[in-house]
Amino acid sequence: MDIKNYIEENKERFLSELFALLRMPSVSADSAYKSSIEDTARWIKEALLAAGCDKAEVCETPGNPVVYGEKHVGDNLPTVLVYGHYDVQPADPVALWDTDPFEPVIKKTELHPEGAVFARGACDDKGQMFMHVKALEYMVKEGKLPCNVKFMIEGEEEVGSKNLGWFVERNKEKLKNDIILISDTGIIAKDTPSITTSLRGLSYMEVEVTGPNKDLHSGVYGGAVANPVNVLSKMIAQLHDENNHITIPHFYDKVKEIPAEERALFAEIPFSLEEYKKDLGVADVQVEKGYSVIESSAIRPSLDVNGIWGGYIGEGAKTIIPSKASAKISMRLVPDQDNKEIEALFTKYFTELAPEGVTVKVTSLGGGPAYAMTIDNDGYRAAEKAMEKTFGKRPIPSPEGGSIPIVALFEKELGTKSVLMGFGYDSDLIHSPNEHYGLFNFFKGIETIPYFYEYFVEIHKK
Amino acid sequence: MDIKNYIEENKERFLSELFALLRMPSVSADSAYKSSIEDTARWIKEALLAAGCDKAEVCETPGNPVVYGEKHVGDNLPTVLVYGHYDVQPADPVALWDTDPFEPVIKKTELHPEGAVFARGACDDKGQMFMHVKALEYMVKEGKLPCNVKFMIEGEEEVGSKNLGWFVERNKEKLKNDIILISDTGIIAKDTPSITTSLRGLSYMEVEVTGPNKDLHSGVYGGAVANPVNVLSKMIAQLHDENNHITIPHFYDKVKEIPAEERALFAEIPFSLEEYKKDLGVADVQVEKGYSVIESSAIRPSLDVNGIWGGYIGEGAKTIIPSKASAKISMRLVPDQDNKEIEALFTKYFTELAPEGVTVKVTSLGGGPAYAMTIDNDGYRAAEKAMEKTFGKRPIPSPEGGSIPIVALFEKELGTKSVLMGFGYDSDLIHSPNEHYGLFNFFKGIETIPYFYEYFVEIHKK
Repeated sequence: MDIKNYIEENKERFLSELFALLRMPSVSADSAYKSSIEDTARWIKEALLAAGCDKAEVCETPGNPVVYGEKHVGDNLPTVLVYGHYDVQPADPVALWDTDPFEPVIKKTELHPEGAVFARGACDDKGQMFMHVKALEYMVKEGKLPCNVKFMIEGEEEVGSKNLGWFVERNKEKLKNDIILISDTGIIAKDTPSITTSLRGLSYMEVEVTGPNKDLHSGVYGGAVANPVNVLSKMIAQLHDENNHITIPHFYDKVKEIPAEERALFAEIPFSLEEYKKDLGVADVQVEKGYSVIESSAIRPSLDVNGIWGGYIGEGAKTIIPSKASAKISMRLVPDQDNKEIEALFTKYFTELAPEGVTVKVTSLGGGPAYAMTIDNDGYRAAEKAMEKTFGKRPIPSPEGGSIPIVALFEKELGTKSVLMGFGYDSDLIHSPNEHYGLFNFFKGIETIPYFYEYFVEIHKK
Repeated sequence: MDIKNYIEENKERFLSELFALLRMPSVSADSAYKSSIEDTARWIKEALLAAGCDKAEVCETPGNPVVYGEKHVGDNLPTVLVYGHYDVQPADPVALWDTDPFEPVIKKTELHPEGAVFARGACDDKGQMFMHVKALEYMVKEGKLPCNVKFMIEGEEEVGSKNLGWFVERNKEKLKNDIILISDTGIIAKDTPSITTSLRGLSYMEVEVTGPNKDLHSGVYGGAVANPVNVLSKMIAQLHDENNHITIPHFYDKVKEIPAEERALFAEIPFSLEEYKKDLGVADVQVEKGYSVIESSAIRPSLDVNGIWGGYIGEGAKTIIPSKASAKISMRLVPDQDNKEIEALFTKYFTELAPEGVTVKVTSLGGGPAYAMTIDNDGYRAAEKAMEKTFGKRPIPSPEGGSIPIVALFEKELGTKSVLMGFGYDSDLIHSPNEHYGLFNFFKGIETIPYFYEYFVEIHKK
């Protein structure tokens, strides 16, 4: 049976299995969901065995467990290592969801006329990861698996893959592979398939500015005491210059200028500024001077405040000078920027920005380096050919602004490249309320994956 | 019986009555406390009647009620109008209180060796207001009330006396008086009595900056979209220049330079910079260039952010560009600055500071003009003489940075001056956790007030 027919015959079951997976609130950022994390790991182990893995196990780590599975076909055949994650972002603000984030429903949208599954993790990454399990099921059942396959599904991606490095370092032999295959990114559109060729790195910091040792009456003290919120605002304001360049000294030292031919390539990526602005509801974009929207948001570094708080935030008026003000500030990095080095540069600069009269505490909340892959790679070419087969159109290489910090570590520890063949859309609201994943995308992914295996074995042999 | 003996005989009862008043959480900023507001108003009405008022009533307004009471002694005698407020600041951050903010306890401190009552409102203004009720009780019971007295105790002072103007305009005849007496300020120290001769005005604003129509993934969009928190920070940073002058155009147009002789007077007010810094736990103060700490915090205008919030403020990392960021920003004003005009100047400037790509909403949360009184006034002189009698030392005139916005309105509507004879200390943590009011101060207030009446009648007759 060909894959299309197999999907057609089994689609209801595939969805009902996916729904069961999505119902488990495996939020890694909040320890209250610990038991759900464990349930989810066990569920995936069983799903891998049911799909045809020879063996599967829940591997303990100092944090959330990693699920490992494998199907061995032949010693002389190449090995594909599938990476994905079963943990999800917190659902809050829960009030902004139209339906329960952990009770999946199918609804049609303009971009998803066939319907989309709405749930936390539908796209990022449970839905995309599960496509690989179902593709394996097809290949095993129909005797079409052309090479060995391993699965490594982790539970801490949304909190910076804190313990995956620990796991990889200790299991290099077990994880040995010829190519790593990951679906945790997106395509540009249904009629514009694309393969992600770069990911930005991340440095995520928390800062706290302390002024007076208690909240003060703003009448009695206002004008004579440094106000931590005003100070923090001024410090944040100094992190960008008027051209939206980041002002941290040496921040750009290792950032390479984008070669002209690459820029020309990016300029060809279909992009409508009008639709982009309309989708976000903004009158204008705000890019780094000299760079396009795509360049600014995908291959140039950026700095954003992700949250800020301090003083009285209740209803009405309270006339205080707060004792403290805090912010979460993260930077997206590009290849060659070292996230640890950037943390140190940020910490030094931010601390220096503080005036007399306040103290500053800077803490790292994690991160990882950027990643880039070339298009003259067996894995990239196999993915390109597989997508061309199922989409009827050659995919384009595309940079992505998000981060999967662990991908750089894979290359370092395991010596192999990662193919970022994802099937979501930027508009799928991952990390936001009403996250969803299209049925078209889910089934197209299952359809494409077996071709990747077929072509990879073919290309890799040569 | 003289007042000292009366206090000695009744001090336990005075405190137990005050405790009952402090147990009612009459927070005006939060509508959840509405029923406590009403209970408190009724309690004060009963307390006024018990103290000897001929009549007392709870007067409805469009907001929280005003308690009115009076004791008429003679048509040809002058009338003192006592103003105070029974509402209190919110207690949050509640976690920083050592004891329950609404369960008063007496504890000794370095500055209060006789003990102090710790509770929200202990000093501001329930404790100070209640001194007047007990002083009236003494004068009535002992037949020593030398003139007529009226009470106007409101329930919205901490939210800008929103409806007191409405009440005063409608009750000019009822409120007719020769002098207004208020205890809602402080003295410099036990051995340095002082009378407040000026108050700053207030304009309290709330601002909201909106960028994209939803929280965005900071990887996918970071670098291309204006981040409302970064934008708000930049806007706040632009409200002061490097000399801590406020940059709002025309903000200082009506601010008069302080005359040299007045500055000389301020320079004589006892003040230790070292103790000031030590008390606040700061390495340095931050004043307006060219002005002292006292000048900067009492007779020059100031601008402070009272609260800020936006984006993810929970545990750990969430990589979003928030859709919105907000702040509460208030300005302290000096005589001749019109708070409504300042609101308009702020709104215009702040809106203009916003870049393309965000929208800004500015709302007023109220305010009022500044107030100044001269020392050649019958009321001031009566207060000076009364304090000299009970403290054994002549009080000094002192400017205060706080605001009682309604005082300027009293002068405009009722044509009389307000004497600001308060008994708290700056260090009493009003508006902060662990607010307290010294027993010495409470009883000294009750002791001083009857002398004010006696001397005012004497001086006013001449």
